Amino acid sequence: MSTIPVKIGIAGLGNVGEEVARQILNGFRIKNEIYPLELIGVSYKSRSKKRNLDLSGIKFYEDAVSIAKDKEIDLVIELIGGETGIAKELCETTLRNHKGLITANKALVANSGHVLADMAEKNNVFFAFEASVAGGIPILKIVRESLAANKINRMAGILNGTANYILSEMENTKGDFNIILKDAQDKGFAEQDPSFDIDGIDAAHKISILSAIAFGKLPSLDSMEIKGIRNIRSNDMDYCEELGFKIRLLGVASETKNKQLNCSVQPWLVPNNNTLASVVGPMNAIEINSNLTGPVLITGAGAGSGPTASAVLSDVIDFAAGRKSLSFSRSAANIIISKKTTSFEKPTRYYIRLSVVDQSGVLAELTAIFRDNNISIESFIQKGISDDKSAQLVILTHSTDHEKIKSASLSINELKIVLAEPICLPIYE
Amino acid sequence: MSTIPVKIGIAGLGNVGEEVARQILNGFRIKNEIYPLELIGVSYKSRSKKRNLDLSGIKFYEDAVSIAKDKEIDLVIELIGGETGIAKELCETTLRNHKGLITANKALVANSGHVLADMAEKNNVFFAFEASVAGGIPILKIVRESLAANKINRMAGILNGTANYILSEMENTKGDFNIILKDAQDKGFAEQDPSFDIDGIDAAHKISILSAIAFGKLPSLDSMEIKGIRNIRSNDMDYCEELGFKIRLLGVASETKNKQLNCSVQPWLVPNNNTLASVVGPMNAIEINSNLTGPVLITGAGAGSGPTASAVLSDVIDFAAGRKSLSFSRSAANIIISKKTTSFEKPTRYYIRLSVVDQSGVLAELTAIFRDNNISIESFIQKGISDDKSAQLVILTHSTDHEKIKSASLSINELKIVLAEPICLPIYE
Repeated sequence: MSTIPVKIGIAGLGNVGEEVARQILNGFRIKNEIYPLELIGVSYKSRSKKRNLDLSGIKFYEDAVSIAKDKEIDLVIELIGGETGIAKELCETTLRNHKGLITANKALVANSGHVLADMAEKNNVFFAFEASVAGGIPILKIVRESLAANKINRMAGILNGTANYILSEMENTKGDFNIILKDAQDKGFAEQDPSFDIDGIDAAHKISILSAIAFGKLPSLDSMEIKGIRNIRSNDMDYCEELGFKIRLLGVASETKNKQLNCSVQPWLVPNNNTLASVVGPMNAIEINSNLTGPVLITGAGAGSGPTASAVLSDVIDFAAGRKSLSFSRSAANIIISKKTTSFEKPTRYYIRLSVVDQSGVLAELTAIFRDNNISIESFIQKGISDDKSAQLVILTHSTDHEKIKSASLSINELKIVLAEPICLPIYE
Repeated sequence: MSTIPVKIGIAGLGNVGEEVARQILNGFRIKNEIYPLELIGVSYKSRSKKRNLDLSGIKFYEDAVSIAKDKEIDLVIELIGGETGIAKELCETTLRNHKGLITANKALVANSGHVLADMAEKNNVFFAFEASVAGGIPILKIVRESLAANKINRMAGILNGTANYILSEMENTKGDFNIILKDAQDKGFAEQDPSFDIDGIDAAHKISILSAIAFGKLPSLDSMEIKGIRNIRSNDMDYCEELGFKIRLLGVASETKNKQLNCSVQPWLVPNNNTLASVVGPMNAIEINSNLTGPVLITGAGAGSGPTASAVLSDVIDFAAGRKSLSFSRSAANIIISKKTTSFEKPTRYYIRLSVVDQSGVLAELTAIFRDNNISIESFIQKGISDDKSAQLVILTHSTDHEKIKSASLSINELKIVLAEPICLPIYE
C-alpha cells in the first residue's frame, strides 16, 4: 500500500539474522505482494564468517548501538541476545530514538520487557517480540489479538525443544539421561553448556512472557518454581510407559480466583491420550484454555533459523502495515511484577519414585508419612531389587495439594531407608 | 487508547449473536482493559425468543439492512447467514456506507468475499471474517499475518465438526453411518438436513477461503472435487483400525510449481501417528506446511457460540485498535477465481474397498484393471464371505496418480462381479 520502503537495520547475523536478512533481500510472500522493505545496515561480530548472503551495498556498523542512531533507519531488529549488555543498550537506544524495535531475545523481554514496552508506549513506537517465545508458533499474537476477548484460564506449554528432544529420546531408547544429553550435544541439538535448556530457565523466560501477555503479571524468575529434567532416570520412562504417561517439561501459568499468579516450569506426567504427550523431538506446543474458545492447542517448531525468522518477519510486516498492539495486551504501566508465584491452581495427582533399602518396616515408615500429611495413595508398585540391594517404589497419589507433597517429600528425604532424593512429578489432567 | 466508543450494530441474534452481544454488554478481557465498545442496535427475526440478555436501551431494527444505513453505527456484525439475500445486501450496504464489516458467513465469503473485499478496499473500510473458518481457531489471522513471510506449501484441515463427530463415533462404536447420523441429529450435533456438513459443502467453503488467503486463488465450489462421508461403512472402520489409520474428512489445498491450485474436500486415511488422526469428536484442526516455519498444527473447537463469538470479537478488537489487513492478504483485484482445480499436488497411496461376487476369476478381472492402469498394489486383503454371498476386498496401492485411480474405479464399477460402487480413499502422508 505504502510505496516508501521500511528501512531496516539488523544487529546480530547468526543463523536467524542471516535468514531474516536473506528473506528481506530476496523477497517473500507478503512483501512481494504489498510491502516494500529495504535492508539498510547490519552489525555482527564474526566478519570472517563465510555467509551465503550478498551484503554489498549494505552498511556495516562496527558498534551495534549505532544502528539505533542512524537517521536513515526506521526499524531495528535485535538478534544479539543476552539479558543485559549491548542488546539491552541497543533496544533502549532504538526506542529512545523513536524507531520501531523487534527482538527475539527472551531473556531480555522476560527481564526488561515491561520497561521497554513503557518506553515504546511513551514514544509511540512499535515494539514486538513474537520470536522470543516458541519460534515458529505465533503464540504471542494469538494470546494478544486472536484470543483478546477471552479470559485465559490456563496455558501449558512444551517450550524448550532441547529438553523435549532429550525426553523423547529417553522414551524411545530407554537410554540414560547423561548419554542422551551427550549425544544431543554431539549432534548440535544441545548447547555445550545445556543448563538453560535442561534446567528449565529458557522455558521459564517464555512462560513468564506469556503470563505477562495473558494476565498482566510478569513473574521474576526467582519468584517461580523452576525444575529441569536432570533427575529423570530411564526407569521413570519404564514406569511411565507401564502407567500410560509421557514425561514432558511444561511451563504452566494460570490465575487463581483471587488473582494470584501460578507460574512454574517442571516435568509433568502427561496422560498418553493428551495431545501434549504426542509432541516429540524438538517440537514445541502450547495449550491455551480460555473461557469462550475452550482449549486450543498449537504445535510447531520452537527454534531454528527458518521458524524464528518467520516470527521476526511477521513483526516486520505488522510494522510495515502500520498494525499496532500494546506489546503485553495492556499499558506497560499496568503490568505487575510478581515477586511471588505459586505452582498450581488446584490439587493434582502425583507420581513419586523412591529408591529405598530393601528391609522390613520400610513401607510402614513411608505410609506413616503420607498419612501424617493427609495424602491418600491411589496405587503403589514395588519393583524388584537391583544389584545395589535397593528397591524401587512407585507411588501414585490421589489429588492433593502441592504443599502437602512438598512437606511429605522433605520428611521422606530425611528417612535413612531412602537412598536418593525422591522424584516427585505432578500429573497433568 | 481511544476513549470514543466504537458503535456497533449486530444483525442476527442466534446463539453466536447473543454471545457476541453479551460479551460487548458485559465486558471481556481486552475491552475492559483498553477499548470502549458500545452496542447500539440489533436486528433479529425471532422477537418472541426468550433471551438471557438485557437489550433495554438497545435499538431494534425491523429490517437488518437499516443497521447499515444508521448514521450512528461504525461497525456492522453480520450473523444472519446465507450466501445471498438479506445477508449479502446488508454487507454490501455496510461497505457502501463506509462502515466496518465483520461477518461469520462462510458461504457468503466463499462466494462473494472478493467482491466485498474490493468494495472495502475502494471505500477504505475494515472487512474481516475470522469466524467464517474453524470457529475458535484463529486460522485466518495466522495465515494472513503470522505466516505472512512464508510460502504456504500445503494446508490440510478437519474443517467440519459434525462430520468429524460422526467419523469418531463410527470408530468408537463400530456403528452404522445412518444410525450414528440419526443419533447426532437427536442430540443436536447435526442439522435435520445434514447435507452441508456430511457432503463436504461446508468444509469446501472453508478451504476455498483459506486458499484465497494463502494463494490468492478463490476456487468456485463447482471447480473442486467435493466428496462427503455418506459412503463410509462400519467395515471401513474395522479395516482402518487393522491397518493403522483413521478416516478424516479433510479440506486440502496447495499450489503446484506452475501455480495451478489443488483444492478438494474428501475423506482421507490418516496414519495413526499423524496428529490429525488424534483429533476426535466435534473438534477442528488445521495443519499448515510452509517454507520457513515447517508444519504448524492447530486444534480447537470449530463451532459453538463461545468459540465463534471469540473469533468475531477478535475482529471487533482489531477494528477498535485500528489494525487493518488486506482481507485476503493482497488487493482484491489480484484474487483469481479458479474455475478449475485439481485434487492433489502429488501421487498418493490409496485404500480401495470392494464388494464382489464370490466366484472364481474375480481377482484376475480386478488385477487386470490395475495392471492396465499402471497401478501397483501394495497389499491385498480378502475378507470372509457375508450372508449375501459377497466377499469384501481391501486393496492398498503404492503411490499413484489420482487420474489413474479414477480411470481404474470407472472400469471396476463396470464389472458385473462388483456389487456396489467401490470406496476409494487417498492416504494422507
